[in-house]
Amino acid sequence: MTEKVVLAFSGGLDTSVCVKLLEEKYDVEVITACVDVGQGEEEMERAKTMASKIGGLKHYNIDAKDEFANEYIARAIKANAEYEGYPLSTALARPLIAQKIIDVAEKEGATAIAHGCTGKGNDQFRFEAVILAMSDLDIIAPIRELNLTRTEEQEYAASKGIELSSDKLYSIDENIWGRSIEGDILEDPSNEPPEEIYAWTKSWKDSNDEPEKVTIEFEEGVPVAINGEMMPLIDLIRKANEIAGNNSVGRVDTIENRMIGLKSRENYEVPGAKLLIAAHQALEELVLTTDELRFAEYMSTLYADLVYRALWQEPLREDLDQAFDKMQERVSGEVVMKLFKGSIQPLVRKSPFSLHSIEQITFEDKETDQREVEGMIKYHGLQAANYQKLNR
Amino acid sequence: MTEKVVLAFSGGLDTSVCVKLLEEKYDVEVITACVDVGQGEEEMERAKTMASKIGGLKHYNIDAKDEFANEYIARAIKANAEYEGYPLSTALARPLIAQKIIDVAEKEGATAIAHGCTGKGNDQFRFEAVILAMSDLDIIAPIRELNLTRTEEQEYAASKGIELSSDKLYSIDENIWGRSIEGDILEDPSNEPPEEIYAWTKSWKDSNDEPEKVTIEFEEGVPVAINGEMMPLIDLIRKANEIAGNNSVGRVDTIENRMIGLKSRENYEVPGAKLLIAAHQALEELVLTTDELRFAEYMSTLYADLVYRALWQEPLREDLDQAFDKMQERVSGEVVMKLFKGSIQPLVRKSPFSLHSIEQITFEDKETDQREVEGMIKYHGLQAANYQKLNR
Amino acid sequence: MTEKVVLAFSGGLDTSVCVKLLEEKYDVEVITACVDVGQGEEEMERAKTMASKIGGLKHYNIDAKDEFANEYIARAIKANAEYEGYPLSTALARPLIAQKIIDVAEKEGATAIAHGCTGKGNDQFRFEAVILAMSDLDIIAPIRELNLTRTEEQEYAASKGIELSSDKLYSIDENIWGRSIEGDILEDPSNEPPEEIYAWTKSWKDSNDEPEKVTIEFEEGVPVAINGEMMPLIDLIRKANEIAGNNSVGRVDTIENRMIGLKSRENYEVPGAKLLIAAHQALEELVLTTDELRFAEYMSTLYADLVYRALWQEPLREDLDQAFDKMQERVSGEVVMKLFKGSIQPLVRKSPFSLHSIEQITFEDKETDQREVEGMIKYHGLQAANYQKLNR
Amino acid sequence: MTEKVVLAFSGGLDTSVCVKLLEEKYDVEVITACVDVGQGEEEMERAKTMASKIGGLKHYNIDAKDEFANEYIARAIKANAEYEGYPLSTALARPLIAQKIIDVAEKEGATAIAHGCTGKGNDQFRFEAVILAMSDLDIIAPIRELNLTRTEEQEYAASKGIELSSDKLYSIDENIWGRSIEGDILEDPSNEPPEEIYAWTKSWKDSNDEPEKVTIEFEEGVPVAINGEMMPLIDLIRKANEIAGNNSVGRVDTIENRMIGLKSRENYEVPGAKLLIAAHQALEELVLTTDELRFAEYMSTLYADLVYRALWQEPLREDLDQAFDKMQERVSGEVVMKLFKGSIQPLVRKSPFSLHSIEQITFEDKETDQREVEGMIKYHGLQAANYQKLNR
Repeated sequence: MTEKVVLAFSGGLDTSVCVKLLEEKYDVEVITACVDVGQGEEEMERAKTMASKIGGLKHYNIDAKDEFANEYIARAIKANAEYEGYPLSTALARPLIAQKIIDVAEKEGATAIAHGCTGKGNDQFRFEAVILAMSDLDIIAPIRELNLTRTEEQEYAASKGIELSSDKLYSIDENIWGRSIEGDILEDPSNEPPEEIYAWTKSWKDSNDEPEKVTIEFEEGVPVAINGEMMPLIDLIRKANEIAGNNSVGRVDTIENRMIGLKSRENYEVPGAKLLIAAHQALEELVLTTDELRFAEYMSTLYADLVYRALWQEPLREDLDQAFDKMQERVSGEVVMKLFKGSIQPLVRKSPFSLHSIEQITFEDKETDQREVEGMIKYHGLQAANYQKLNR
Repeated sequence: MTEKVVLAFSGGLDTSVCVKLLEEKYDVEVITACVDVGQGEEEMERAKTMASKIGGLKHYNIDAKDEFANEYIARAIKANAEYEGYPLSTALARPLIAQKIIDVAEKEGATAIAHGCTGKGNDQFRFEAVILAMSDLDIIAPIRELNLTRTEEQEYAASKGIELSSDKLYSIDENIWGRSIEGDILEDPSNEPPEEIYAWTKSWKDSNDEPEKVTIEFEEGVPVAINGEMMPLIDLIRKANEIAGNNSVGRVDTIENRMIGLKSRENYEVPGAKLLIAAHQALEELVLTTDELRFAEYMSTLYADLVYRALWQEPLREDLDQAFDKMQERVSGEVVMKLFKGSIQPLVRKSPFSLHSIEQITFEDKETDQREVEGMIKYHGLQAANYQKLNR
Repeated sequence: MTEKVVLAFSGGLDTSVCVKLLEEKYDVEVITACVDVGQGEEEMERAKTMASKIGGLKHYNIDAKDEFANEYIARAIKANAEYEGYPLSTALARPLIAQKIIDVAEKEGATAIAHGCTGKGNDQFRFEAVILAMSDLDIIAPIRELNLTRTEEQEYAASKGIELSSDKLYSIDENIWGRSIEGDILEDPSNEPPEEIYAWTKSWKDSNDEPEKVTIEFEEGVPVAINGEMMPLIDLIRKANEIAGNNSVGRVDTIENRMIGLKSRENYEVPGAKLLIAAHQALEELVLTTDELRFAEYMSTLYADLVYRALWQEPLREDLDQAFDKMQERVSGEVVMKLFKGSIQPLVRKSPFSLHSIEQITFEDKETDQREVEGMIKYHGLQAANYQKLNR
Repeated sequence: MTEKVVLAFSGGLDTSVCVKLLEEKYDVEVITACVDVGQGEEEMERAKTMASKIGGLKHYNIDAKDEFANEYIARAIKANAEYEGYPLSTALARPLIAQKIIDVAEKEGATAIAHGCTGKGNDQFRFEAVILAMSDLDIIAPIRELNLTRTEEQEYAASKGIELSSDKLYSIDENIWGRSIEGDILEDPSNEPPEEIYAWTKSWKDSNDEPEKVTIEFEEGVPVAINGEMMPLIDLIRKANEIAGNNSVGRVDTIENRMIGLKSRENYEVPGAKLLIAAHQALEELVLTTDELRFAEYMSTLYADLVYRALWQEPLREDLDQAFDKMQERVSGEVVMKLFKGSIQPLVRKSPFSLHSIEQITFEDKETDQREVEGMIKYHGLQAANYQKLNR
C-alpha cells in the first residue's frame, strides 16, 4: 500500500510543485493541509482551489487563527519580541502550523510530513525542529532534496500544467502578524524596494495627511481594546494593521542574519505589530522598575532569538514566558499613540501600577530635603574615584 | 584672604543665582566659567554678558567644541550610546565641562568648585563624580545646600536685581549633540509637549514635503563626510542637525528612570544624533557578525548606563572603548538614509568589509548543494527535542 | 506619653549599646526583639538574658526558622545564589528579620524601628529598605547617627555596666545558612585567618581522614532528603552543615565589593550552603539544556546582587523566582557528592529528567551516520570564515 | 600525479588508521605532521616513530610550544576562560595546530588536509572551521566519512599491521594546558573514574600531607614568576602543573554540553590551569572595580564559548581580547595560594593597583562621618518601595 504524506500547503509555487514531486519522485499519496493563521480568507480559498486543481488525495483547511493570536502573538507582545527589528511574523507561526500538520498526519495515519522549503532559509529549521521534537514522523523536503532553483521549479510547474494564480515575482509569506516579501530585485540591498511589494501599508505620499491618535488598552501585557472597543485579540490586531497601515507605519527594510549565518536583505510589512509593541513598551516604561526594564530587554533578545532560530520547543522559552507573565501582571492600563507618515509617538500613558509620581519629581517640592542626596553622591563612583586617584 | 571658587556658569537662572548666593552665604570670591560644547555662540555671549552684569571676580569662556566632538561624541557614536532612547547629550558633556572647570580652578588657585544643580537630578552626580575623582577640590552646591525651589530662586534673583534674558518657563540644556527641555507643564507626562519647546526640529506640518536622501560616510565607526563633503566632526554634526531637523527627525518624548530612581518625563531634541546613530547602525548590520552585533548591543546598554550614571571615570568605560575601537575598524563605508516627517530609513549601505554576499544568498544558486544543511537541522535543537520526548 | 521603639536585638555589643542609647539620647521606650533564623538556641537564650539584664521594656524571641528555610533559603538554592562566592547567609535573613520586627512594631503600636548597624556596612541598607517599603515606621540607627567607633561603643557599654557575655574580638553574624566573621586582624587581607574564628568547620588537619560520600535528593530544585532520610529543609541544612563541616568544606576567605563600593575582606563559614548548592548545580547539569544553564547563570548573578544589595522587595526578584520555579520543575533526582578536606566532587547524578543519553554519545554507535554532521560544520562559523577571507 | 594530503597526526589509533585509509580509500600520498603544543617529548617521539613505521611519504614534528603559551594560553588566562568548569586545553590548541598544518600543506603543495576526528565530537569543528577560514584547501575526514566505530578502527589497524604503542582503553588528548580522557567506562557518568586515568595529579591519598604555599607574580594579567623565579610562560605552566598536581589539584569530572547538543561525561586533568586561573582571579578581585568584574565574568563566558565552539577566527574573539588587554593593564602583582588535597585558597594578594583600603574600611575610622550614607539609603530601592506601597 502506498504511504501517505501530509504536505504543509499554501498554494504557492514551492508547495504546488511539491505535490507533483512527491507523487512522481517519492511515490507517495499526498494530503495537503493549509493552516489559517490569519493570512486572509482569499489566501485560504486559493490554497483550497489550487489543491483541488493539482489533485492530491485530500485537502484540509485548518482554522488556527485564535490559537495563533492567543497562544503565540500574545506571548510575543509581552516579550516585545523582535529579531533585529523584525517582529517575527513567519517565525512565530511556523511552530503552530507544524503542530497542526502533525495532528493531521497522526489522524490520517501518514508516515511523513513534507514541506516546500529550500535549503538556504530559516523555515526548514522551524518545520523540522517541531516535527523532530513533537512526533516520530519522517520528514520530506523535496525542493531541498532535489536541489532545485526557483527557475527549475517554474519549469517543472509548467511541465506539469500547474498554473499559478498570478505570476508572482516575489516569495511572499503572510499571516495576521505580518507579511514578508523576498526574492527578485530585493535580494540586492542597494535596490530600493518598489511600492508594489506592499499590500497593507500606504506609501508616505498616500497615507493620512493629519496625525491620527489611537488608544490601546492593555490587561496584563496583552492589548484588549482599541479606541475604547473591546475585542478578541485576532480582531484587534486586524484593526491595528489597518490603522497603522493607513499611516504608513510598519515597513521594515533590513539586512538580517539568517540562522545559517548568511546576511540577507529582508522586507517586512508589520503595521499592527509595530504599533502594538510600541504601545506595550510605552506602558512598560511607566510601570516597570529600571531593573525590570533592563532584564526584560535582555530576555526579549533571547526570546526573539529562540523564536527566530526555530526553538519554540526549547524549555528556556517556557521559562522566559513565566518570568514575562509575572512581570506583565502590572502591565495594565491605557496608552495613546500618535501616528503619522511612518512615525509612532506615545502621547499619554495611564496605569494603576504607575511608578511615576509628579509629587516626587517636581522642582517645586518643599517636602524633600535636597541635601539628603549628598551622601549618595559621595559614595557613587567611589571605586572609579579610587582608580583615578591611583592614576594621578 | 577670601577664598576663590570657580562656578560652572551658563547664565541661566540656577547659575546666575549661585553667583550671588556664593558671595552672600558662603563669603567667597566667584570666578565664573562657561564651557563651549557647541551650545552656540549666542549662548556663549549671553553667559559672558550675564557674568559681567552680575559682577563676579572674573569670567572664562572656554572653547571645548572639538574636544567634545572628537573625544566624547565620536565614542558615543561608535557605541550607539542611548539611554532609554535618549542619545545622552547633556550626560556626555558634563564630564568634559567638569574637567575644564577643574583646570580653571587649579590655574586660579581656587579651593572649591561650585555648580547650580538641584538635589533631584542627575547633573549633580555628573559634576561631583568628576571633581571627586580628578581633583582634591571642595564642592559647593548652593541650590541644593540651601534647599531652594525654583520659585524661591526666582524671588531671590529678583531681590538681587538679576534680570534673566528671557522669562523662560523651561529648564533647557543645550550642546551640539542635543537639547533637553524640562519643567513646567512638561512634568506631567499626560500633557502633550507644546511646539514652542522645540528649536532645532520643524513640526510635522512645517517639515519638508518630499523625502530627503542624505549620504553619510564613515571611517572606523566615525562619520567623516556628509553628502560627499568631508568635514570636521563638529561641523558634520551641525549639518546633520540641520538636515534631520528639517525633516522633523529627532524629537524624543519619554519617561526616563533617573539615577536616584525617580521616573521622570523628559523631552529631548536630538536630530543629528538620531540620524548619525541610525546610519551607523545600518552600516554595522552590513559588516559585523551576528555575535559581534549581539555583544555590541550588550556593551551599548552598559556604556549608556555608565555615561548617564556619571561614571565616565569608571575604568570599565575605557575597557568598553577598547572593544568598540577594535570592532569599529571595519565600520567604514557609505550609507544613504531617507528622511521624511520624523522617519528615518536606510536605503543603501556599502562597505569594503561587507559580509553580505548576493552569490551566497540567491535562490538561483546552483553551486551550493542545499542538501548539505540537513545534518545541521538534525542536530539543531537536539536538546529541545530530547526534552519534548521526555514530556511526551 | 513616651514613644515606643522596637529594636532588632541580638545581645551583641552593637545592639546592647543601642538599648541604652535609645533610652538616654532618644528618650524612648525600648522593646527588644530577636528573630530566630537558626542561629542556635544558645544564641536565642543569650539574647533573652541580655535583654532582661539591660532592662528594656519588653523582649520578644520570634521563631522564624522554618519560614527562613522554606521561603528564603529554598529560593536561594534554586537560584544557586552566591555573591562573589558567598552564599548570602546574612543578606538573605535580613529582609525576614526586618519584616518580623515590623510585625512587632505594629502590634505594639511603636512609632519607629531601631537597628544597631554602623554607617559602613550593607546591613543598614537591608534593614531600612524593607522598613521603607513595607511600613510607614520611622527608623533610628543610633550607632550611625552618633557616629560611634567600636572602641567608643565598648567604653559606653562599660560606663553603663553592660557586661558582654564574652569579650569577642570579632563581629559575628550567624544563621542556619552560614556564619560571617569580621573585624580585628581580619580587616587586613594579608593576615591569614586564625583557626579560632571557625565554629562549624574542622581544620584540614582535624577533618575526616577518609573521603565521605553523601547522597542528596532534590524535588523541584529543593533538597528533601539526605543519605536517604527525608526531613524538613531546616533540619536537612543542619545535617548538611555537620557533614560538610566535618570535611572542612565551607570556609570562604574573600575580598568583596560592598554596596557602597568599599572593597572589604570577608570571612564566611558556610559548609551546608556550599554542599547543597554544589549538589544542586551537579543535578542541573544533567537535566537543563545548555540554553537554560546559561540563562540560569545570568539570572543567578542578578539574583545574588539583588539579595546582597538589599533589594528583596524589588519586583524583579519575584520575576526571577517565577523563571527559576518553572525551570526547577525538572530539577528532581539524586546526587552523590564526595567530600574530603575542603573539596567537593559530584560522583553520581540521576534524574527522570536527565538529558544525558549513553546511546547517543557512545563511540560504538552504529545507528547514527557520522556524515550527517558535515553540513553543520560547513555552515558553522560561516561569518567568521567570510571575515577571514576579507582579511586574507 | 597522485595528490598530496597533509594529515594532522598524533600516532594514536584514529590518526594511524587514517594514514592507511587515505592511501587505500582515497588514493592520495600522505604527509603526516605532529604539532608540539607541550604534550611532552615522549609523545612527540612516539608520533615520529609511529609515522615512520606506518610509512607515509614524509613526517613533520613542529615546535609550537612557545606560540601556544604566549598567543593562546596567555589570552585564556586573562579571560579566565573555562567552559562549564573546563579550562579548554584541547579546544585552545586546535586552531594553532590547524594553522601549522595549513602552513605545511601550503609549503608542500598539498591539495587537502586530513584529520582523524569522528562525527560526534567537537574537534572536527575546530579543525575544519580554521581550514575553511584560513585556506582554500579541501578537507578529508576518513573516520567520519567511512562512518567507522572504534572497534572497526581497531580491526582495520590490526588488518594493516599497525601496532599501537599501548593498548589504550581511553581516548586521550594532551597538551601543556591539560589532559582530556574519554571513552570506555567513563562514558557512563555513574562510573567513578579509576585512578589509572590520571597522569599529572596525585590522588588524595598520595598527595602532600601538609598544605603547600605557592607565590605567583603577574604582569598585566599574565603569570611571569612562580615562587620568586621568573621564567617563560611555557616553563611556568609546567612548574604549576607539577606543584598543583602534587596537591591533587586539577581533576575535573563533569557533564558537558557538546557543540552538537549531546550531553557528555568528560574527565580532564588540568592542575596548572586551575592554579593559575584561581590566582589570576584572586588578583583581579583586588584591582578591578565591581563593574569591571561583572563585565569580565560576562565576557569570560562568551570567550570560553567561542573557543569551545571552534570560533577562534570569529572577529568577536579579537574584540574581547582588546577589552581584556585594557582591563589587564592593572592586573599586576603577587598572589600567594595555599594548596591542599584538591583545595585552592588565596592567602595574600598585593598590587600597586589595589582598590582595597584599610583606612576606608576599618570600624575604627573617625574621619568618615557615618551619617553621610543616610541619603543614599533613602534613595536606594526607591522604585521597589514605590512598588510595595502600591501593593499594600
